Amino acid sequence: MNNYKLEIQYDGTKYKGWQRLKENPSKSIQGKIEEILSKYLNENIEIIGSGRTDAGVHAIGQVCNFKTIKELEENDFQNINNYLPSDIRLINYLKVSEKFHSRYNANKKIYMYKIDNSSYGNPFIRNFSCHIPEKLEIEKLVEASKIFIGSHDFTAFSKNSNKKSCVREIFSINFKKHDDIIEIYFEGDGFLYNMVRMITGSLINYGLNKISLKEIEILLENKKRDSFRYTAPPQGLFLYQVFY
Amino acid sequence: MNNYKLEIQYDGTKYKGWQRLKENPSKSIQGKIEEILSKYLNENIEIIGSGRTDAGVHAIGQVCNFKTIKELEENDFQNINNYLPSDIRLINYLKVSEKFHSRYNANKKIYMYKIDNSSYGNPFIRNFSCHIPEKLEIEKLVEASKIFIGSHDFTAFSKNSNKKSCVREIFSINFKKHDDIIEIYFEGDGFLYNMVRMITGSLINYGLNKISLKEIEILLENKKRDSFRYTAPPQGLFLYQVFY
Repeated sequence: MNNYKLEIQYDGTKYKGWQRLKENPSKSIQGKIEEILSKYLNENIEIIGSGRTDAGVHAIGQVCNFKTIKELEENDFQNINNYLPSDIRLINYLKVSEKFHSRYNANKKIYMYKIDNSSYGNPFIRNFSCHIPEKLEIEKLVEASKIFIGSHDFTAFSKNSNKKSCVREIFSINFKKHDDIIEIYFEGDGFLYNMVRMITGSLINYGLNKISLKEIEILLENKKRDSFRYTAPPQGLFLYQVFY
Repeated sequence: MNNYKLEIQYDGTKYKGWQRLKENPSKSIQGKIEEILSKYLNENIEIIGSGRTDAGVHAIGQVCNFKTIKELEENDFQNINNYLPSDIRLINYLKVSEKFHSRYNANKKIYMYKIDNSSYGNPFIRNFSCHIPEKLEIEKLVEASKIFIGSHDFTAFSKNSNKKSCVREIFSINFKKHDDIIEIYFEGDGFLYNMVRMITGSLINYGLNKISLKEIEILLENKKRDSFRYTAPPQGLFLYQVFY
């Protein structure tokens, strides 16, 4: 079998997330890509993603792989892109060893969360950012972000999941600001369900003086899932890069 | 009467252009803003735009003005923004003299045309750019743009309009490139219907070697409206700034 690794981008606005749905597979990113690949290759193709993204969440560098009996050439990938809808794009492909697995082999991921901090709400990024009209001080966001760096049990910062361990390591949290846009880059060995959105929610709430650093620390230490208050909305989140 | 000047941004994707429609006013930008203002002020408000934009065309700095018997305060403008849909935003306002007229007093405008020159088509700007997958050389676009700078009769580069004169002056055409995105800024004293899209179409076609410089020059000199070949699509065009 041939194993191909794909790098893809998507605008998740119209989709119910990455994971294939039984009812309406083409409303999920995975299901939509599988539908196109299966038709094009005339084979039943299943793709393995590096991880799931929620409904409304986007990807700048999602990675997936799939196996096929066929040998594919550059031209095939261009054709596949032509069949994909304009909100899901194939930006790179690579033939990899048969053992390669997009999820198991990923050893680092970067998620990016985008905040539109304009007073009025930039109409061009309204589906690609979370609009916070009150001015946020980057210094405060940076201060609160330090609580999360390192290895922690992120139980309180994740929604129900059947993961054995909720310990994850965040290597770094970096900030970029240009005009009214704030981008937060989370680099770690892996992220739990809703983890980035919940951490971002606490950074924003600290920035808005609605929660103290001490309260955030206690939330993290208590490891109680139901204690958390604010999950930043999905449209600001991007799966940015996956490393192998 | 009080006269207020508004600076607005809009994502034109869902609208049938700036101009109010008799049938379904709220499908136009003008009609939608008038609907909100009239409701908020409990008066029949008509707004005057600096110029029309076509269906699917956006604005980063459209200007309009309206007259009202009421005195408005900062708080009112914030409220109006809250009533406006998220794809139309009020970004600035100013009380101006009763004589101020957004269209008659405009003496310079900048339009910006955005080209996505990535091979695959960036999914995040697909409604805010024209996707040209073949690589364009900026140098060629700059070369062809020089034909249009200065005062010309732009009859061949406009769609039907009832303007007395088709002579317009383009002061400058500037290019910005970052990654795969090319932005072209057209600065002039005024622009005819479809003029920027038709000029952009000829620049792109020269960049793709589908038309020669000589052919573009002849088109401009011949002043025949039906001779033109390619109008760049609306989603790449932005009314960028209006000067008074």
